[in-house]
Amino acid sequence: MSTLDSLLSVESFESRHIGLNAEQKSELLKAVGVTSMEALISQTIPSGIRLKAALNLEAPLTEVAAISRLRDLANRNQVFRSYIGMGYVDTTVPAVILRNILENPGWYTQYTPYQAEIAQGRLEALLNFQTMIVDFTGFEIANASLLDESTAAAEAMAMSFALQGKDSKKAFFIAEDCHPQTIAVVKTRAKYLGVPVVIGKPEEFKWNTPLFGAVLQYPNTFGVVSDPTSWIKAAHDHGALVTLACDLMSLAILKTPAELGADFAVGNTQCFGVPMGYGGPHAAFLATRDAYKRQMPGRIVGVSKDATGKNAIRLALQTREQHIRRDKATSNICTAQVLLAIMASMYAVYHGPKGIRKIADRIHAATSVLAEGLRRLGYSVEPAFYNTLTIRGGDSARLHAAATENRMNFRVINNDSIGVTIDETTTSVELEILLKIFGEAKGKLITVNEIAGNAPLGVKPSMFRTSPYLTHPVFNSHHSETEMLRYITKLQSRDLSLAQSMIPLGSCTMKLNATSEMLPVTWPEFGRIHPFAPSAQVSGYSAMLTDLEGKLAEITGFDAISLQPNAGSQGEYAGLLSIRRYQEAKGESHRDICLIPSSAHGTNPASASMAGLKVVVVACDSQGNVDLGDLKAKAEEHSSKLSALMVTYPSTHGVFEESIQEICAVIHRHGGQVYMDGANMNAQVGLCRPGDFGADVCHLNLHKTFCIPHGGGGPGMGPIGVKAHLAPHLPDHPVVSGGRPDSLGTISGAPFGSASILPISYLYIQMMGAEGLKRATEAAILSANYVAKKLDPHFPILYRGKNGFIAHECIIDLRPLKETSGVEVEDVAKRLMDYGFHAPTISFPVAGTMMIEPTESESKPELDRFLEAMIAIRGEIREIESGKMDRKNNPLKNAPHTAESLVAASWDHPYTREKAVFPTAWVRESKFWPSVARIDNVYGERNLVCACPPIESYA
Amino acid sequence: MSTLDSLLSVESFESRHIGLNAEQKSELLKAVGVTSMEALISQTIPSGIRLKAALNLEAPLTEVAAISRLRDLANRNQVFRSYIGMGYVDTTVPAVILRNILENPGWYTQYTPYQAEIAQGRLEALLNFQTMIVDFTGFEIANASLLDESTAAAEAMAMSFALQGKDSKKAFFIAEDCHPQTIAVVKTRAKYLGVPVVIGKPEEFKWNTPLFGAVLQYPNTFGVVSDPTSWIKAAHDHGALVTLACDLMSLAILKTPAELGADFAVGNTQCFGVPMGYGGPHAAFLATRDAYKRQMPGRIVGVSKDATGKNAIRLALQTREQHIRRDKATSNICTAQVLLAIMASMYAVYHGPKGIRKIADRIHAATSVLAEGLRRLGYSVEPAFYNTLTIRGGDSARLHAAATENRMNFRVINNDSIGVTIDETTTSVELEILLKIFGEAKGKLITVNEIAGNAPLGVKPSMFRTSPYLTHPVFNSHHSETEMLRYITKLQSRDLSLAQSMIPLGSCTMKLNATSEMLPVTWPEFGRIHPFAPSAQVSGYSAMLTDLEGKLAEITGFDAISLQPNAGSQGEYAGLLSIRRYQEAKGESHRDICLIPSSAHGTNPASASMAGLKVVVVACDSQGNVDLGDLKAKAEEHSSKLSALMVTYPSTHGVFEESIQEICAVIHRHGGQVYMDGANMNAQVGLCRPGDFGADVCHLNLHKTFCIPHGGGGPGMGPIGVKAHLAPHLPDHPVVSGGRPDSLGTISGAPFGSASILPISYLYIQMMGAEGLKRATEAAILSANYVAKKLDPHFPILYRGKNGFIAHECIIDLRPLKETSGVEVEDVAKRLMDYGFHAPTISFPVAGTMMIEPTESESKPELDRFLEAMIAIRGEIREIESGKMDRKNNPLKNAPHTAESLVAASWDHPYTREKAVFPTAWVRESKFWPSVARIDNVYGERNLVCACPPIESYA
Repeated sequence: MSTLDSLLSVESFESRHIGLNAEQKSELLKAVGVTSMEALISQTIPSGIRLKAALNLEAPLTEVAAISRLRDLANRNQVFRSYIGMGYVDTTVPAVILRNILENPGWYTQYTPYQAEIAQGRLEALLNFQTMIVDFTGFEIANASLLDESTAAAEAMAMSFALQGKDSKKAFFIAEDCHPQTIAVVKTRAKYLGVPVVIGKPEEFKWNTPLFGAVLQYPNTFGVVSDPTSWIKAAHDHGALVTLACDLMSLAILKTPAELGADFAVGNTQCFGVPMGYGGPHAAFLATRDAYKRQMPGRIVGVSKDATGKNAIRLALQTREQHIRRDKATSNICTAQVLLAIMASMYAVYHGPKGIRKIADRIHAATSVLAEGLRRLGYSVEPAFYNTLTIRGGDSARLHAAATENRMNFRVINNDSIGVTIDETTTSVELEILLKIFGEAKGKLITVNEIAGNAPLGVKPSMFRTSPYLTHPVFNSHHSETEMLRYITKLQSRDLSLAQSMIPLGSCTMKLNATSEMLPVTWPEFGRIHPFAPSAQVSGYSAMLTDLEGKLAEITGFDAISLQPNAGSQGEYAGLLSIRRYQEAKGESHRDICLIPSSAHGTNPASASMAGLKVVVVACDSQGNVDLGDLKAKAEEHSSKLSALMVTYPSTHGVFEESIQEICAVIHRHGGQVYMDGANMNAQVGLCRPGDFGADVCHLNLHKTFCIPHGGGGPGMGPIGVKAHLAPHLPDHPVVSGGRPDSLGTISGAPFGSASILPISYLYIQMMGAEGLKRATEAAILSANYVAKKLDPHFPILYRGKNGFIAHECIIDLRPLKETSGVEVEDVAKRLMDYGFHAPTISFPVAGTMMIEPTESESKPELDRFLEAMIAIRGEIREIESGKMDRKNNPLKNAPHTAESLVAASWDHPYTREKAVFPTAWVRESKFWPSVARIDNVYGERNLVCACPPIESYA
Repeated sequence: MSTLDSLLSVESFESRHIGLNAEQKSELLKAVGVTSMEALISQTIPSGIRLKAALNLEAPLTEVAAISRLRDLANRNQVFRSYIGMGYVDTTVPAVILRNILENPGWYTQYTPYQAEIAQGRLEALLNFQTMIVDFTGFEIANASLLDESTAAAEAMAMSFALQGKDSKKAFFIAEDCHPQTIAVVKTRAKYLGVPVVIGKPEEFKWNTPLFGAVLQYPNTFGVVSDPTSWIKAAHDHGALVTLACDLMSLAILKTPAELGADFAVGNTQCFGVPMGYGGPHAAFLATRDAYKRQMPGRIVGVSKDATGKNAIRLALQTREQHIRRDKATSNICTAQVLLAIMASMYAVYHGPKGIRKIADRIHAATSVLAEGLRRLGYSVEPAFYNTLTIRGGDSARLHAAATENRMNFRVINNDSIGVTIDETTTSVELEILLKIFGEAKGKLITVNEIAGNAPLGVKPSMFRTSPYLTHPVFNSHHSETEMLRYITKLQSRDLSLAQSMIPLGSCTMKLNATSEMLPVTWPEFGRIHPFAPSAQVSGYSAMLTDLEGKLAEITGFDAISLQPNAGSQGEYAGLLSIRRYQEAKGESHRDICLIPSSAHGTNPASASMAGLKVVVVACDSQGNVDLGDLKAKAEEHSSKLSALMVTYPSTHGVFEESIQEICAVIHRHGGQVYMDGANMNAQVGLCRPGDFGADVCHLNLHKTFCIPHGGGGPGMGPIGVKAHLAPHLPDHPVVSGGRPDSLGTISGAPFGSASILPISYLYIQMMGAEGLKRATEAAILSANYVAKKLDPHFPILYRGKNGFIAHECIIDLRPLKETSGVEVEDVAKRLMDYGFHAPTISFPVAGTMMIEPTESESKPELDRFLEAMIAIRGEIREIESGKMDRKNNPLKNAPHTAESLVAASWDHPYTREKAVFPTAWVRESKFWPSVARIDNVYGERNLVCACPPIESYA
């Protein structure tokens, strides 16, 4: 008998997370041509930056132990009934949506739907989302989606600025009765854009300051519903564009922002069946006039046709986006909140127009009853409201205490005022309890029944909407659970996810999202917590967040972490602002030059621009490395104004640049700061740390390296790590932690971003431990080198490190094929669908190439299946090159092949149906059918349709 | 403003459960030709039996309220760490299996895999199950699966009896160290079969009583591992067959039952990653020699070929089953435990042979350490054990109290002995606590470290197995979570479930299994409870079970309910035994005639036979009703020996027979009892009650009428309701409630059957309320009549009630088509797959017909899609009849058409590929591809392969 310890050591999570077992690792090492993992790593990562000791993390926990410990933390959170409002309300997630979308890897593991032919399911759900937003706001166009209501308001400001304010000295007006977090985020955004801000009461504004735009809250943060029509008219007369920040559910009964004359509507869709989650994730929306669509930030879904003329959905207007427009973009938003947008749209599909109307009516009626009861009890409330009352005339301290005793939270406004927001979950029993609490404080008692028939409504007749909404059949067909389940299942079957095969995206680390990591996300102790709940109720969250910050700091080598940025783009932005704020505090506000290598992702220059920085591009050498000479020259040239360098490491070319320490030193010598893009952190964890080799700040994509699933295009999380000197400047929050004078301001609506998905990363780190994390990184690098080695003879690898190895991803060059065969990189991407695979990243960072990142979670058999597909496709291209196959009519140009294409009366292709759809034996076993043929992008751009098309158009 | 009450009344669950909205109901009523629902019901159900008042049930709860209330009950259950053993241990459900199988409607909503071409996913999983059982037991054949270990032992006894004991007076030996529930179930089964039983210590048995068989527990219930080889040899010498009831996990290290010479092995697979669930559901196994396969009870999966020669899996050897052999069958088992068998098989796939071996080693090592510690502390334990110790020499009361204080349960054996069973979840920390508890009681302290290296193993070298197991690639390929998820996803994609389209099975009510109903099933407060946990810890369960019994009694009109029978077949059997026990108590044991109408399901005569009754068949008239004259004559003829009538209501012909009251009266007049088969209860709930119109006992298929999902062929639940005179005779349980002298005995291993799935039915009743349940039944009847009305012109309806209406299902006659077109009912079933539908029940109760039951959960659009398919198929048949289409080469005979069939080099069919696979527009949108073509049943029977075939056979 061996020792008990080893016998009692249960199996590690690591062995489940890493796809390569010991035998497979050996095979891969051999194939790559090294004798050991250490031999590979030492030839891949510059020795100067290698971590000398193991990370100082707890020993790994088993899945059971980690979940059990998190359960203990969850139990320390107290789920009080929230009446706090302020943009976050309790909601009922329909169980069929909870289980079949939020808890379903078939929905949460997909990538962003760039490969639209195998993403028609979520694209349809997102089209439903846009249609729903268009219907509720009355505008012509909506995106899908933004990160939160506050940043959506900031985006609307940036759009207004781009449309009306650029090169002017005009200001932006923020109504003081907007939600405080919205005011804070917009102010922060304005400050670094150089936009003056006026905060005040709209009705008191005298138009003595020229404005390019304004944002009002509708209903306002205190619940008042007023008619902004005349104010908006005045704004227009003064050349200003007006944004209304809306409560989506209220728009089921209130006049639409468009009807009121506004130019933009923004808001949160959390109230449509998405848990509060201590602040996120939820999907926000932005809707506007058709005329402004090309200034619209974020993803827009549009209808086009496929090669057979069938309706097909795709991402539209991508030329607006930051990866094309770079520093000319109005926004840096990249990852959206796809999974949450889908949930909200499914909520609308499930309830339909009548159901939503009934919910909104119920909320309004209940609030009206409560208001009347409060008045009769001697409190004062505003007469015009929808779901929120600001209550004066009571003993606030006593009332809050009584609420706490009843396990509920009211909004703390000030000593005189209490806020109460009613939501769809409010029952008549709860109304009675509310009346009892407020009654007891006055020594009176009143019941719901006494009031019910006679309560005046909060919404005045003139403010009721009469226009219809959700009239499309999709919102009127799936109201039984059976129909709803089948609709969800049908859409799911059209999307390729990690549940089918690897998604080898470069720069977007699509690794395992383990079930154990996902389980806590839907625990009510994490989901049903308001972001502004009193700290005493969230000690479980607090403990977890503090611990997570410590772990991330240890992994990255930084001194402090901010969890507030709720996407990678937000992390970039926050990181740059921390630098700017630091320089401001040092009296160096004039430093406004940001060096960015030419290979950088478009989000980098867009973020720099948002931070008020001017972008200076640094050249790359033929190996894809930063051209050190050019860097030195540019740093020298801009020395006095140098603010920062943005650099990705390992590089976007998939290489650990040898000179990274020197690069950082150059910047520091010129008084600049180094911002590191953490997109490629999956190649570093446990092997080297940005904080050790020169970065001052770095963001982390928790949805890449730390296992938060991609959700089909979001949610993400982009916390930042900083060195000590930047720590005082990290983001602040006006409600929860407000008042740190050196802070850069506020980045996201919620203090800890999308807090409810942080358990995913937390569990991942706990279950892997220091050694597990290191071995994961090693496996990722090994697998990438294996893929590179095997593909190189067929598709040359474009960039390598000095010893010939790559980091965790590689770029293969397909450019020469265009001339020899007419085949373009997109053709290969589409042909991969026929082989059952999602394409790697295409044309980034180099047009005409593919970037492949296998991650550590794939097994050798899966890697081999992918390689088999790629090599077979190369063979198909060779047939074109040799003239055996036509340059136009071939399996690549016609890809992807649908099942429908097989049954057409004629098959006029010079290859068989079998070759078209079952090109390998594996595909025959695991066929994934694209639901449409090649989508016509040009048609879609020329005939832009961004809402559900009439059902006849499918005929 | 309307009254607040109506505004605060949130939407009912009923509107989600019932597929027809108000408008659709009107359309259907019109189509059926009645003016109102009442008009339909009053012409369908005999007025004499109509319920006069509404059911007395609580007002319906919303989904949120019902879940919240159940949460409160769940919180009253205390999840103690269980060391009780006795066949139930704690286990870790791999999260990837939990979420993607147990919590996935794509796995839990399918029907039994009779339509094998669209069930290859679960059939493969079941083949894996059989392979795993064959590997662990060493036998040639295993079934998939039985209801629990105790009934499996009873089935082995029945098999032994059929093989060796029939027509003899030989006895069956039960080792007294079997689990008490197994002894009780086997004794009960033996009693009514008329088999004498000897219970004793095997080593003391002198062979003075002739035996046909014996069952021993291995390791025994007290944990002792002894070598039964010589005893088995002696048994064989005396002509007796020996069954070993095994701990499955122990077989990873112990010699197999086959190696020990046994004839049968039975056991539970719960320890393979299936929650204890307060007793169930879990899948039990039975394995034996190849020679006995035709006597094997339950479902056996076998490999065959499809029309193209590809491997394909199907249910094999169905001629053994009770629906063919009726009263000649050795068993009445019908629904198995498919979902749980799949989970257990996936556990083996996930861990593989090395992982399982490690788990078994760990359990064994930990037990060895505990044993050594206990010895050193001065306790006595048996030296030969695997995972269970019977501990003597301590103060039992004090030890149990200390356990309770530490939130753990030991087994209470008697004043001198305590049982402790170690399982895979046992950690070294827990071992320390155990040693501390036992140490403190002796005033000593000993730690794991002091013992670890020196503990003698419990399993003696001679008892270790050396034979390999789980050698097939399927058990050696999916060990990373990514690979496991993809394997699960791949298999799921091969199975049609309710998540795709309706499954219109007659007599098997495939209605909505709402997500809210399913959520609590995986709450640990229901799942991690040992069935023999002290009653103080299960007050939540107790309250729910009592309440559920009351609700079921109210719905059925009975006076008492037993929740013990864990399948419909068990309910039938228990119901008949309650009658027999009642008659025995009255001194009428001689009553042994059971009248059964010729239309009855085969399970009825099989159950009667198991209850020791002789079946006398009663004729049916041309309308499918019981021939009253024949009934009277038979009752008269057998008056003095008449025990019972078994009758299904509404009849298996889908009709509410007018004479049901008279039928019952006839039986009562002759001193008999009426057993009602509750399979068709979905046509009665809220409209009439069996207890009111003459039934003395009835079983309920909770997995039909009360929303427990079918699980792809189980679990089911078959509680019985009885009138007061039968109540004293309801099932008892030796561990939990033992000692009721008038009880019929014990039916299932666990006191409340599959307790953990009872929340499903409980929530359903709570959320529907009396009116909702009634309207569900009405909608089910309406939809069935709509389908009948629409289909009749194409496929004549065989039976109707006196006013021309049917109950909740209808039989369509396809027999004439065979002559006119050569088309058989099976061809239509297979062709429906091409249209995206699962076939209705075929050839029951009349060969050559289909029985269709749409249930209340389908919407009109779905009913119309199904009707469109059926009518289109009739059109295809007409083309054959008219000679336009060949009688052999046509879409029906070639159905189902796979995607692979489309790509074949040639298409030599006189119809297009399009017609083959996209016969309607709807199918184009929602295509479900059968993964194999028509399966060759004859080949499969001639070349029986019931374990995973070697991988080469797929080439």
